[in-house]
Amino acid sequence: MTGQRRLGLALDIGGTKLAAAVVDQSGEIVAAHRVRNPQGTDADVLFAALTSAADAALESAGITPGDPLLVPAIGVGTAAPMDLQAGTVSPVNIPAWRSFPLRDRLSGHYQLDVGLIGDAVAVAVGEHWRGAARGHANVLGMVVSTGVGGGFVLNGRVVVGATGNAGHIGHMSVDPDGPDCVCGGVGCLEAIASGTSLAAWARQQGFSPGTETASADAVADAALTGDAIALAAFHRAGAALGLAIAGAVTLLDLDLVVIGGGVAAAGQLLFDPIQAAYSRYAALGFAHRPRIVPALLGGTAGLIGAAAVALDPLAYWPTEAGRFVRS
Amino acid sequence: MTGQRRLGLALDIGGTKLAAAVVDQSGEIVAAHRVRNPQGTDADVLFAALTSAADAALESAGITPGDPLLVPAIGVGTAAPMDLQAGTVSPVNIPAWRSFPLRDRLSGHYQLDVGLIGDAVAVAVGEHWRGAARGHANVLGMVVSTGVGGGFVLNGRVVVGATGNAGHIGHMSVDPDGPDCVCGGVGCLEAIASGTSLAAWARQQGFSPGTETASADAVADAALTGDAIALAAFHRAGAALGLAIAGAVTLLDLDLVVIGGGVAAAGQLLFDPIQAAYSRYAALGFAHRPRIVPALLGGTAGLIGAAAVALDPLAYWPTEAGRFVRS
Repeated sequence: MTGQRRLGLALDIGGTKLAAAVVDQSGEIVAAHRVRNPQGTDADVLFAALTSAADAALESAGITPGDPLLVPAIGVGTAAPMDLQAGTVSPVNIPAWRSFPLRDRLSGHYQLDVGLIGDAVAVAVGEHWRGAARGHANVLGMVVSTGVGGGFVLNGRVVVGATGNAGHIGHMSVDPDGPDCVCGGVGCLEAIASGTSLAAWARQQGFSPGTETASADAVADAALTGDAIALAAFHRAGAALGLAIAGAVTLLDLDLVVIGGGVAAAGQLLFDPIQAAYSRYAALGFAHRPRIVPALLGGTAGLIGAAAVALDPLAYWPTEAGRFVRS
Repeated sequence: MTGQRRLGLALDIGGTKLAAAVVDQSGEIVAAHRVRNPQGTDADVLFAALTSAADAALESAGITPGDPLLVPAIGVGTAAPMDLQAGTVSPVNIPAWRSFPLRDRLSGHYQLDVGLIGDAVAVAVGEHWRGAARGHANVLGMVVSTGVGGGFVLNGRVVVGATGNAGHIGHMSVDPDGPDCVCGGVGCLEAIASGTSLAAWARQQGFSPGTETASADAVADAALTGDAIALAAFHRAGAALGLAIAGAVTLLDLDLVVIGGGVAAAGQLLFDPIQAAYSRYAALGFAHRPRIVPALLGGTAGLIGAAAVALDPLAYWPTEAGRFVRS
């Protein structure tokens, strides 16, 4: 990434929103466009919405797909799961796409290579490239919001796993006798510590700030005023997160853990019980090193991480390193 | 690794035994020598025992440290923990070495580069290179014996972590309210599923085959005759292993899990409850792919894995890939 300015096209595909951005090689967003996920069952309608967002971002940046400033690849962070070998995606919360050939459709449309990573992996990559994990070689990045997702950078390279689905820390069991999870598992981190689960547990315990559908935000607000149930809900979620993080660090000898997402915005309310549980369950000497810190990039992390796939393929290209051929 | 035959010197450092081997580029052991760990507190006595084993293996193979057949590096699998940056080791069960500068001492003695990895990581690498995990890019290798250790190969490369200590699956908590572990943690896999823990639990439940110190082997023998406590002990250990493996697969989207070590030699007695728990806790679609299989190489896996560090540094050199300079 020397010489003239280079630009990457990044896409972030979620259950409610589709986002596209043109990002420069320093990680700055030059232009971005965001549209609602059309929510239907027509695969092509959804694909057209995605390309319209991408086209709008390109147009705002004043470039075309053939522009020599654009690197010859698109980086995509997508809701999971995917099949990296086939280049297909089947996002749980996007019923329009089942084994949808996203890689081939995008590369056919734009005549560019396409690198796919999971949306939470893209957040981890974004934080590694330009955020709180910058300069650290071995990182777990997490998103704690309506769900719990994650991604790893190890030895400076993204970890995608055999099928592109590495990083699913939300579906690691942290309690052999814990609650059933929507995935079919038992005691999954997400079934305890997601915003959805946290709020549901609080309501089950009698938390009722005037609404039957109190959100994690409402629980956080109540916790800050000393509400005992709300505090217990954050303690329970933090304890589960701390145990899962302890497991990941013990397995992988990490340098840093970065946590973003709406629930993590609660700050010390969540990070204090995380740290307490982490210290309890990560006792080996090398596990005392890594810090657990808040994310820095907020909602743009996924786009920046997806751009990194296109702009720094040796580190972030989600197939065998170096497969990407520079033009 | 083309052209003339090349040989690697491999060392395997354990609490009771020190082993050295000369290994060829196909993974065949040309010569090996094994000595008792002298068990004293003198660091130099232990180092001399190690080099005497290495010298004996070299002599048996008919080569010298300066021989052009020998690749210019020694691969070492060592009891943990280590500090990969400093090149020092402080094995829990080898009190003679505390922050012992093993890398510099060996490289000074033999005038060869030295690559350090953990002993269980070396077993995983051995199984990946020449054993049950051959041809699989994303692998967890485990040793279930007096302790529980492990190591990862991801995208075809060994994972060493920030300080060389990745792979410590034995100290991942699998039960937030589980037994205390010697490491200071709570509910660690090793505190439930190691041979030591398995046998201790059986004895606590009243298992007594005529001795107060019944081993895991004795428990396995009794389980095969239908002893209820012995069967329950293997079920409990297998359940803990299955949950931990489910966590590792969910985090890293693996292709294969290989399990060796004395307790794993019990076969279906252990693998059946492992598989049952794995299926319960690894519910995501991509986690249905990987198989959990017994190791193939037995006691030589660690030496073969250590040799791989010297013979195939691009995959197994335990620092940034490619740092090893071929002569």
